[in-house]
Amino acid sequence: MAAPIDFYFDFSSPFGYLASERIDEIGKRHGRAVTWRPFLLGATFKIVGTAPLLDYPMKGEYSKHDMMRSARLLGVLFRLPSVFPTSSLSACRIFYWLADTRPDLAKPFASAIYRRYFADDKPIEPAEQAIEIAASLGLDRAAVSAALQDPAVKARLKSEVDQGIARGVFGSPFVFIDGEPFWGSDRLDQIERWLETGGW
Amino acid sequence: MAAPIDFYFDFSSPFGYLASERIDEIGKRHGRAVTWRPFLLGATFKIVGTAPLLDYPMKGEYSKHDMMRSARLLGVLFRLPSVFPTSSLSACRIFYWLADTRPDLAKPFASAIYRRYFADDKPIEPAEQAIEIAASLGLDRAAVSAALQDPAVKARLKSEVDQGIARGVFGSPFVFIDGEPFWGSDRLDQIERWLETGGW
Repeated sequence: MAAPIDFYFDFSSPFGYLASERIDEIGKRHGRAVTWRPFLLGATFKIVGTAPLLDYPMKGEYSKHDMMRSARLLGVLFRLPSVFPTSSLSACRIFYWLADTRPDLAKPFASAIYRRYFADDKPIEPAEQAIEIAASLGLDRAAVSAALQDPAVKARLKSEVDQGIARGVFGSPFVFIDGEPFWGSDRLDQIERWLETGGW
Repeated sequence: MAAPIDFYFDFSSPFGYLASERIDEIGKRHGRAVTWRPFLLGATFKIVGTAPLLDYPMKGEYSKHDMMRSARLLGVLFRLPSVFPTSSLSACRIFYWLADTRPDLAKPFASAIYRRYFADDKPIEPAEQAIEIAASLGLDRAAVSAALQDPAVKARLKSEVDQGIARGVFGSPFVFIDGEPFWGSDRLDQIERWLETGGW
């Protein structure tokens, strides 16, 4: 089987959410697993010199319109959260803890976080909110709470973020297919085509 | 016939060039004329708080790769010019002068400018370069030269730029279909679909 697709995203990213609702089925159609890699986009802002999307005059207004229109086109339920953007540190840490201890629950947890935030307009921080979502998947609250404070889990997230930056990830979603980088949910068609053809 | 599509672009914009090679045929398939409106993207940088694309670490490198890959996918000949970005003031002025006096030559002139810069890697500034291209379309050099200094032509360009900004144009290409805004050559598929369906 071909190498997995790497799927980087920030839990606070609308376009990351849209891609998360489609990327696994795209991979599946082409015999590819998809490795989900939540990271902290804020860590790249200083390096790249960018800011949160909605902070930009004109571009921010357009982007709101564009994300809603793109969601409708993809058939994905989407609302711009009333509190936006959000920190996603707890969600990221829980995700990587699950990826290492209960890998079967890592993606369901990530999807539950994304849908809670972008479809239900409910908060994913502070930590209690993310813990609640983990509990809804049957996980033990105390164990999740402990994981959030575990230096090894913190280090795992930091390493993922550093590795993403080293690979050139500066936006969300950001996908690699055999090393080929694709930025943006508007590259899903190109991603599908790249998988079909092996590149052009 | 339905209202024309408005197509805003900057002559120094790779993605504007890519869109310019496809937008008229897209319009034609759906019975729409396309009004080309070159403008000066630099005028929006201060308002939006953005900078030329390649000035951004990480994002700039990715964008170079992305524009070449997107050009190959669209089947458009493209090279990143050795001197990039460029001013395009002369090209813009000549374009609007033609739009008002020789409208049949305005788009051919714009395409010739774009291809010279992005396919042939030749300069489009200073003014002599843009005049040369106008001359290659059979225009009188002295008349073109005079137009470049004409206060009415200068005012026409300024008015187009101001109007674009007032309508929310902050990037290139930027397209309006019956008031609906689309930013980026990666929205050509959405543009086509919008024209087909009247929106979604």
